[in-house]
Amino acid sequence: METPSLRSEMGWSTADRITVRGMDLCQDVLGKLSLGDFAFLEITGRTPSAAESTVFNAVLAVLVEHGMTPSAMVARLTYLGAPESMQAAIAAGLCGLGTTFAGTAEGAARLLQGVRPLGTDVPYDAAEAADTAARIVREHREQRLPVPGIGHPVHKPVDPRAVRLFAIAQENGLAGPYVTLMQAISQEAERAFGKAGRLPVNATGAIGAIASELGLSWKLCRGLAVVSRAVGLLGHLAEEIEHPIANTLWVRTEEASSSHLVPKEPQ
Amino acid sequence: METPSLRSEMGWSTADRITVRGMDLCQDVLGKLSLGDFAFLEITGRTPSAAESTVFNAVLAVLVEHGMTPSAMVARLTYLGAPESMQAAIAAGLCGLGTTFAGTAEGAARLLQGVRPLGTDVPYDAAEAADTAARIVREHREQRLPVPGIGHPVHKPVDPRAVRLFAIAQENGLAGPYVTLMQAISQEAERAFGKAGRLPVNATGAIGAIASELGLSWKLCRGLAVVSRAVGLLGHLAEEIEHPIANTLWVRTEEASSSHLVPKEPQ
Amino acid sequence: METPSLRSEMGWSTADRITVRGMDLCQDVLGKLSLGDFAFLEITGRTPSAAESTVFNAVLAVLVEHGMTPSAMVARLTYLGAPESMQAAIAAGLCGLGTTFAGTAEGAARLLQGVRPLGTDVPYDAAEAADTAARIVREHREQRLPVPGIGHPVHKPVDPRAVRLFAIAQENGLAGPYVTLMQAISQEAERAFGKAGRLPVNATGAIGAIASELGLSWKLCRGLAVVSRAVGLLGHLAEEIEHPIANTLWVRTEEASSSHLVPKEPQ
Amino acid sequence: METPSLRSEMGWSTADRITVRGMDLCQDVLGKLSLGDFAFLEITGRTPSAAESTVFNAVLAVLVEHGMTPSAMVARLTYLGAPESMQAAIAAGLCGLGTTFAGTAEGAARLLQGVRPLGTDVPYDAAEAADTAARIVREHREQRLPVPGIGHPVHKPVDPRAVRLFAIAQENGLAGPYVTLMQAISQEAERAFGKAGRLPVNATGAIGAIASELGLSWKLCRGLAVVSRAVGLLGHLAEEIEHPIANTLWVRTEEASSSHLVPKEPQ
Repeated sequence: METPSLRSEMGWSTADRITVRGMDLCQDVLGKLSLGDFAFLEITGRTPSAAESTVFNAVLAVLVEHGMTPSAMVARLTYLGAPESMQAAIAAGLCGLGTTFAGTAEGAARLLQGVRPLGTDVPYDAAEAADTAARIVREHREQRLPVPGIGHPVHKPVDPRAVRLFAIAQENGLAGPYVTLMQAISQEAERAFGKAGRLPVNATGAIGAIASELGLSWKLCRGLAVVSRAVGLLGHLAEEIEHPIANTLWVRTEEASSSHLVPKEPQ
Repeated sequence: METPSLRSEMGWSTADRITVRGMDLCQDVLGKLSLGDFAFLEITGRTPSAAESTVFNAVLAVLVEHGMTPSAMVARLTYLGAPESMQAAIAAGLCGLGTTFAGTAEGAARLLQGVRPLGTDVPYDAAEAADTAARIVREHREQRLPVPGIGHPVHKPVDPRAVRLFAIAQENGLAGPYVTLMQAISQEAERAFGKAGRLPVNATGAIGAIASELGLSWKLCRGLAVVSRAVGLLGHLAEEIEHPIANTLWVRTEEASSSHLVPKEPQ
Repeated sequence: METPSLRSEMGWSTADRITVRGMDLCQDVLGKLSLGDFAFLEITGRTPSAAESTVFNAVLAVLVEHGMTPSAMVARLTYLGAPESMQAAIAAGLCGLGTTFAGTAEGAARLLQGVRPLGTDVPYDAAEAADTAARIVREHREQRLPVPGIGHPVHKPVDPRAVRLFAIAQENGLAGPYVTLMQAISQEAERAFGKAGRLPVNATGAIGAIASELGLSWKLCRGLAVVSRAVGLLGHLAEEIEHPIANTLWVRTEEASSSHLVPKEPQ
Repeated sequence: METPSLRSEMGWSTADRITVRGMDLCQDVLGKLSLGDFAFLEITGRTPSAAESTVFNAVLAVLVEHGMTPSAMVARLTYLGAPESMQAAIAAGLCGLGTTFAGTAEGAARLLQGVRPLGTDVPYDAAEAADTAARIVREHREQRLPVPGIGHPVHKPVDPRAVRLFAIAQENGLAGPYVTLMQAISQEAERAFGKAGRLPVNATGAIGAIASELGLSWKLCRGLAVVSRAVGLLGHLAEEIEHPIANTLWVRTEEASSSHLVPKEPQ
């Protein structure tokens, strides 16, 4: 039996050369590959085509900034306590990108790739998508599980991000079987649950479908959210440095949480 | 006195519209702004020019992938224990981007911006840079402090990443006073310490200088490393999923660390 | 409908008084409550009896120190990069206490509490335990799922920690229905799988059973591991400060991972 | 030159035995050593005396629970997003125990141990303490630096936690030179700054002094806070599971932060 190895293909360097994913960092990457395209190289081992680049960067861009989310609050509150380690503030904010939020894109991609494994090469037609969608919705309904990737509390009757992502995929020739199936699931769910216009494909459903079109395993979908949100959290910390709110947020929350406990001062 | 506020300008959304940093996400960002350019928008509040985009993405790209670093090892070992939360594996890896590694770009930028505050508009000439550099090197020498941004244990006589970053900045009209000063510091240090060809500007020195040219506060430099390395850590986790090494790394390390403790079995 | 509230009962303070969980910190806690007993107070809202204290601290103590685990390696490697923020090194180490390791105590407790909800007051006899155990083992076997809380790659035919924890629980009058059931599951699994002496209750199974005896929800079991391991990671960092190994670990791993990539120097 | 080693003395195990810090886990630790005493063993390599145990556990207990702090908010908000990984929620909360909060005990201990290194065996008298205190206060004043360990925004004229910790140390024969010096610094600062009754030794000053009496390096003081607060954060998560507030906190904060941005609906 072969001895387990520690081999990695990610990168190496000598005195005058740095190689990443087989490419010369200084000659082939710096000044030529944008951060988003470098992310594609990191996870697939190859640089994206122009079409893939546009679509992949759009997927990442959807996840960067969602306003004052829990993860943004966490990064700011952590920076308040540990301004010496901005890295820990961003890390803390990322820790909350779990099943409740980022996990839904993962769930959608997993569902789609379970039906049609990555690398499948046979054609796909709308009728087959409708059949599969009907089965998926029925199974989730029977087990009283939510169908991943559809519905949104605010964005109704459609999630404009999903609409735009699908359009970008279409323009770039990357709207294939996974997009078809995700859309069929939404239509079937709206029909089966009698909720016309209330169970659109949402942003995470679109991300799960398009990541699948790009050949990315569902296991990495959560990581896409993490990478993108790291960018957004840096933005929040840049604002926090200029216009801090974390201390005010703390003071107000502490007051609201404990005012019922503190005995009133005697008059 | 005004009541402290929780106001933020980062983003907001309604049923049919999402706005980030004042831009319409669906119309103006998706499909148009790459991840790196979005990062520039997040921290400066405006989109970069083409020249700024090239230079800024090059700075980010330098920091993405350094091979099997401690942060990559940490991400892989964390994923081994908690595969259910990839976000925590990346976060754990980012926690180590502190003063030893990512902090050096911060230090270089802080030094440069201490001499010439961001927004300074007066011209800068080489003679002034040489004088300032001489003073900086003298002061660090007297206090026996390392000068941030120069020297590298492996990359000698030059750090090829710094050379390339400065060339990219030059080509894009963004090699100004901070680059001049950083280079003067390296020359002066080599002279003063009698170490010709051994104290070149290193990658973090170049990053500190160019971030300053882009108008980015030294307080954000560590964050640039965090954002970039998040991309690299996702790459390492993608490889770890396909070709896991963390368990082998653990077993070998445990054996190496405790073999002197375990009593030999009686024969 | 009542407005959702931010109320918390954890603690509050005024100029001359600090109250935690309803107790006066200075008068009733400091000098009287050990860290482990304070943990019991924090999660249950009351101080433990002497018997509960002994058993609860034993559960915590099992989880503190397991030698050079991935979480210990992570804490050390993170401290190497960010010595300015020891908090982040410990936090990074804790991030890996997930489903692979700490999650197994959670799984055992969840299984037991699913069969017999916390607070159940009816008696429990060995025959009932055997029946339930047979059903549980059968169901896991049919679904090809591992039964949580039994078996260990190293500790065979028994896990000495589980044996000792059960003895401590017994001595303190806290070995009740959950312990009975956990032991029955092990016996039934060894019988059903034909693996006599190879599927003992392991440490995490014992922890899950005893946490249930103490009335602690399975949802908190992973947290017990986190609290205990935080203590162990501080120990590893104390050793790392005195006798650092992280840099050597890094250098060796980098070499082992990339030596196949680096071109040989021409002779 | 000796090859750098990965040796560790923390622990090891074989099939029937687990040893931690040289002690047999099952025979000598479980049921005998409380969590706090185990922490002492982990960082010093020996078990505490009864007096040391009382004092050390009191130091830890001071740091467990401070009500709705930023770190508690962070843990709750992270759990909201990633309920599958409680470890990451606690880790995120710990990331903020940096220079602003936990760092002050570190600063006080560092100051004290700088004046009188650990292990110093010569006697110490009040007059020497007063001289040293005067010098320390003068130096901090000249450099406009805050003196670590004194003053508190709420707890005035004394911090009752410091008073109680010093009393516990006294009762246990552990109020020695470091406590004397810390108290002298407070007195001198109140005199020099003309702030009688407003610069008492605070809780972190007392912790820094007493940790020094226990022989613990200032480098570990932040880690004591981390270990203790991990306990407190588990308490907050236990409450969050029963009575969640994180979602309400998010909704309120998002509303407060962005209401000025959202255009009013046309009437």
